[in-house]
Amino acid sequence: MTRPGGRTAEVRAAVLRATGDLLARHGFHGVDLATVARGAGVGKTTVYRRWGSPSALVADLLTTMAAESVARTDTGTLHGDLTANATLVQTTLNDPRQGRLFKALFSAATYDEHTAAALAEFYRTRVAEWAHAVTDAVARGEAPIGTDPVATISHLSAPLYYRFLTTTEPLADLDVTRAVGACSAAIAAGVFVVDE
Amino acid sequence: MTRPGGRTAEVRAAVLRATGDLLARHGFHGVDLATVARGAGVGKTTVYRRWGSPSALVADLLTTMAAESVARTDTGTLHGDLTANATLVQTTLNDPRQGRLFKALFSAATYDEHTAAALAEFYRTRVAEWAHAVTDAVARGEAPIGTDPVATISHLSAPLYYRFLTTTEPLADLDVTRAVGACSAAIAAGVFVVDE
Repeated sequence: MTRPGGRTAEVRAAVLRATGDLLARHGFHGVDLATVARGAGVGKTTVYRRWGSPSALVADLLTTMAAESVARTDTGTLHGDLTANATLVQTTLNDPRQGRLFKALFSAATYDEHTAAALAEFYRTRVAEWAHAVTDAVARGEAPIGTDPVATISHLSAPLYYRFLTTTEPLADLDVTRAVGACSAAIAAGVFVVDE
Repeated sequence: MTRPGGRTAEVRAAVLRATGDLLARHGFHGVDLATVARGAGVGKTTVYRRWGSPSALVADLLTTMAAESVARTDTGTLHGDLTANATLVQTTLNDPRQGRLFKALFSAATYDEHTAAALAEFYRTRVAEWAHAVTDAVARGEAPIGTDPVATISHLSAPLYYRFLTTTEPLADLDVTRAVGACSAAIAAGVFVVDE
């Protein structure tokens, strides 16, 4: 006997894996419900009933990606935490499948408002997770009181995403070092301090 | 009598304007040669002969955009120049047509290598143009000797592009202030200094 909960979770995982594969390979236009069902090895009716549209599949994929993403690293120092975050972004965007998947998600968000909202929610979740690194640094006296954690983490990732999107080269270790250095200098200068 | 050079330039301008309109409205998939010709009010054969593919049209559009983009502002101070650049990025990305056009270009670059190369070349040109602001600042003693101008200008634009792509909100003045502040702090800390 199969537990219904277990089977449902397995179907969902297979369907979202197939959705991610199609997105990475062919983009949003490749996310066809029948093709997803075939790729996942599940019945077409299941995909049509449970998700119903490519938008809904991609939104659910983003929710799962946010939920299953690695927790923020706690190295005990601000510099260590910033380096861990920037290195994670580097590894993710340099990975061929993940890199193509993220570009496909940005592309899908351009033409589909539902995906744009889901993508923004994904980044809100991820940035909020890593924001603790900044809150902890403030508590330890490593960053000025009032430093905005969300603005800080966004500024840390930004140069890596910019390079990822505007050049055709992979992210180098120097890019990580510079992102961490620039963010640290801005934190120390109080650029992200907000009045409460 | 029409000057042949003038007519050629007019046809090119009309064709590239139509290409930009279709890109902004429908994305790369909307850049159909016959539709471009109709939109530009020129013969289909002209577009087929002179460009031949949607890729070539978009690459030519990017070349023109790079050539016709406003020259860098020279305010006489590093802070003034950085603010002028960040404000230009804000204005461009917040403009509905331009914003959609840039998202469409990122999207097209994801699925078309020719466009990816042309987009990278566009950013190389634009960043190089503004890099003079950094070279001048070094000469004036406003930035450490050896500051990498390209890395600096890329870091300045990055947080604005990151916000543009990962949220659904327009770029606020605070985003510009923070981008300039963070970049200035990183410059002063010598983050972009390279050994010659």
